[in-house]
Amino acid sequence: MLSTVRCRLSSWRLLSSISSTTSSTIKYSTLPELTKDRYPNVRRSDYSIIKSNHLEFFKDLLGEHRLITDENECLAYNTDWIKANRGYSSCVLKPKSTEEVCSILKFCYDNNLAVCPQGGNTGLVGGSVPVFDEVILSMSLMNKIISLDETAGILTCEAGCVLENLDNYLAERELMMPLDLGAKGSCQIGGNVATNAGGLRLLRYGNLQGNVLGLEAVTPNGRVVDCLSALKKDNTGLHLKHLYIGTEGSLGVVTKVCIKCPPKPKAVNLAFLGLNSFENILKVFKKSRHELGEILSSCEAIDADSLAVTTEHLKLKSPLDKFPFYMLIETHGSDNTHDEEKLNRFLGKVMEDGSVLDGIATNEPSKMKDIWDLRERITEGYLHDGYVFKYDLSLPLEHFYSLVPIMKDRVGRDAIRISGYGHIGDGNVHLSICVKEFSTEVLNKIEPFIYEYTSKLKGSISAEHGIGFRKTNYVHYSKSQEAIDIMTNIKCIMDPKGILNPYKVYPPSRRWSNFK
Amino acid sequence: MLSTVRCRLSSWRLLSSISSTTSSTIKYSTLPELTKDRYPNVRRSDYSIIKSNHLEFFKDLLGEHRLITDENECLAYNTDWIKANRGYSSCVLKPKSTEEVCSILKFCYDNNLAVCPQGGNTGLVGGSVPVFDEVILSMSLMNKIISLDETAGILTCEAGCVLENLDNYLAERELMMPLDLGAKGSCQIGGNVATNAGGLRLLRYGNLQGNVLGLEAVTPNGRVVDCLSALKKDNTGLHLKHLYIGTEGSLGVVTKVCIKCPPKPKAVNLAFLGLNSFENILKVFKKSRHELGEILSSCEAIDADSLAVTTEHLKLKSPLDKFPFYMLIETHGSDNTHDEEKLNRFLGKVMEDGSVLDGIATNEPSKMKDIWDLRERITEGYLHDGYVFKYDLSLPLEHFYSLVPIMKDRVGRDAIRISGYGHIGDGNVHLSICVKEFSTEVLNKIEPFIYEYTSKLKGSISAEHGIGFRKTNYVHYSKSQEAIDIMTNIKCIMDPKGILNPYKVYPPSRRWSNFK
Repeated sequence: MLSTVRCRLSSWRLLSSISSTTSSTIKYSTLPELTKDRYPNVRRSDYSIIKSNHLEFFKDLLGEHRLITDENECLAYNTDWIKANRGYSSCVLKPKSTEEVCSILKFCYDNNLAVCPQGGNTGLVGGSVPVFDEVILSMSLMNKIISLDETAGILTCEAGCVLENLDNYLAERELMMPLDLGAKGSCQIGGNVATNAGGLRLLRYGNLQGNVLGLEAVTPNGRVVDCLSALKKDNTGLHLKHLYIGTEGSLGVVTKVCIKCPPKPKAVNLAFLGLNSFENILKVFKKSRHELGEILSSCEAIDADSLAVTTEHLKLKSPLDKFPFYMLIETHGSDNTHDEEKLNRFLGKVMEDGSVLDGIATNEPSKMKDIWDLRERITEGYLHDGYVFKYDLSLPLEHFYSLVPIMKDRVGRDAIRISGYGHIGDGNVHLSICVKEFSTEVLNKIEPFIYEYTSKLKGSISAEHGIGFRKTNYVHYSKSQEAIDIMTNIKCIMDPKGILNPYKVYPPSRRWSNFK
Repeated sequence: MLSTVRCRLSSWRLLSSISSTTSSTIKYSTLPELTKDRYPNVRRSDYSIIKSNHLEFFKDLLGEHRLITDENECLAYNTDWIKANRGYSSCVLKPKSTEEVCSILKFCYDNNLAVCPQGGNTGLVGGSVPVFDEVILSMSLMNKIISLDETAGILTCEAGCVLENLDNYLAERELMMPLDLGAKGSCQIGGNVATNAGGLRLLRYGNLQGNVLGLEAVTPNGRVVDCLSALKKDNTGLHLKHLYIGTEGSLGVVTKVCIKCPPKPKAVNLAFLGLNSFENILKVFKKSRHELGEILSSCEAIDADSLAVTTEHLKLKSPLDKFPFYMLIETHGSDNTHDEEKLNRFLGKVMEDGSVLDGIATNEPSKMKDIWDLRERITEGYLHDGYVFKYDLSLPLEHFYSLVPIMKDRVGRDAIRISGYGHIGDGNVHLSICVKEFSTEVLNKIEPFIYEYTSKLKGSISAEHGIGFRKTNYVHYSKSQEAIDIMTNIKCIMDPKGILNPYKVYPPSRRWSNFK
């Protein structure tokens, strides 16, 4: 029976007062400007324009219900959920099998039609929606679980399975997905793989490059690449799956995934802490690695302004008073008595040395969910502010929070809110700069400065969100010329006509001179 | 203070009687046949033959002590340690910096000289020695540690660092390498990365594809690919490091590695168990995942004949009586009281249900080392028997041991010994068929049958050893035609003259028709 952890120091309070909230409704009252108008420097390449004979082919292949051409129906597939990008495709295709994906891609390749593969469309860099009129290949109907080896913990499924559905399926069998992210209710495993999604527990369970055992993908000209190995070890030549993990659908379309699933923890505990400085966050993180060792499953940092978007806009209730910073520290283990003992020992130490000012800890599922909501729904909360310039950076730990005060100086009153939160355990900060509406002037105050700053510190200009459409001009801040040359060469041989997810991932100068 | 774990059941015995052994000397009295003579079907491609002007260039670059041309001195670099392959290179180069590697490769590329990169030369598939007269590029002098971030646990070092040296360096700083293997005293981290080495604790700490954060490599024509990122998350286009992890030096030479290092466990416990059937091994493995959860760090299976090579040839002493099968189960944790409790509970259960017949458990370092030697020195012990046909297969768990009885039937009296052991936690079996001396007749009884069998079960014909020279004819048993096409295309654009580690990794038909 789970219960609330009683902490040993008097300043610790038992969690009791967080009330559950209903999901808030996001207003989509204003449509974002078309991407082609917002970014007039990006020119449509000479792909074919979709015509009735193309649509006839698709209709014959998929039937009329899995071909969407109605402008209103297409809108949701054309627009990304943070209202930053919008294409104007008039053709959405919803295959149900690898064979159908092959037929679609072969046809598009032969007819020089550009294709935008789309999973749950939860991306944050414009990678999952068309830039112009690319055919949208929605994977949402490829959502079958193929097999599960319960002893070894190996799941094989189609690419369109929603992450949360997979996790629920596994939970009934004492297993779990090795990744978890805020968008889990919508994002699809194929999209997760294509973008190498990181998420909340990478610290403990590792990245997809380590957890994806195999995958099946379809080449731009419609051939199946079967690397759907369910083996933990397989050193037989090039590890081709890595050509598809994190390449954002630019080299092939992921159709099936085989993934390693760890046992579901028998004990989960969550602490929510209030701190007065970023320095103390670093201290507490270091201590948590040492004291919690193998049971530490997540270590997140949130600043006051980030928390405020969930308490103000989404009406979530924080169980703590106001502090400049907060941390979520979660443990996953196999023996609750042992885990509570470790957690209490750790919490006692960080309270005693003054690095934590207040906190609560619980292992009651509904209360843990309420706390996690405070962290996971920040992105959603921000949508209520207006337009958000979002950045997802990896920085050396000591510089994790440095950009927030710098950006406050640079952008000043133009911003409604500037805040930082993220995965301190992975050195991955999410920086949000919120303005009333999109403004090139503000954008120019932020970019390219923010990338130059990150590059100087040998950070990454995109820790987990990818390059997509919106960061293609900045790849060189994280990749050397030689690396960009190799990237481009591989794109050229794997997609010589450049039909897959064009205008994305690769630097424009390279993209257009080499393919298309 | 570490102590011996007292088990709760009377049949458990305290470990006390394993005596340390000194390292045995391996006899190299007979040199293996030259590879070119043993495999007459493999023809030397039209690379240049090394001449005095080439040697002059190398001497000017490296000085006379880092250029080896003496035939006897070259012998150790030409021969692999299991005495299965021998090349006849007359030129070994020992660069000390990335710049020197660049100069060497550029020169070889311009002069059409083939190159065999070499780490610790502990490979088991002939990948680390020349087939003919390829220039040997020994990385052993590039052995400097560049930096260590102790808070984040991130090590950056040169490729020639010996794995054990790195582990010792980290141990003093409460960290550890995420991989460990029998050859750790000789193998180099660059070679580990190039072969995607798995080893004894992959089950717990994951594979190199997940643990290598970044690397630096040199292209065949001498350009530096700087992907030496020290970031846990970096989604900025293609993840180029994966072109070098596990591709056995065929696309570039790894010169520097940045790797994630977990905290050194505060508590380590090891159990050595005797069992009467393979079915019970599976039962105990499943139970260990469930009962030991997050602290399980290794789960190994050994059959009686495998153990015998270490007790008979290396005079190691087993702490248990004779059983048909043995298991090693190790835990890594942060609290010894908790870990002992979990281990005792687990051991109690598997004794009680009869799946384990006898066993010992200890956390005394010297005694743990003695037990690990019984497992880690099997390969070495086998060298005393004669010639070993070694196979390294991934198979579905239920078929893990099935090839041992099948091979006993097929090879019969021609073999001195046929045995299986390996990483049950990873589904990776090492099968050894020992004969007095190499025999094509025996080889034909084994191959291609063993690969066909593995392929039918959707296993891997090389779980962790790689393809090297000796498995190139069998790649198609684990890779589809489409996958082989992509592999070959990538090799063609990344090494158009095919100078890097030729005659290896790629299927011969593809290799020679496309490059060289």
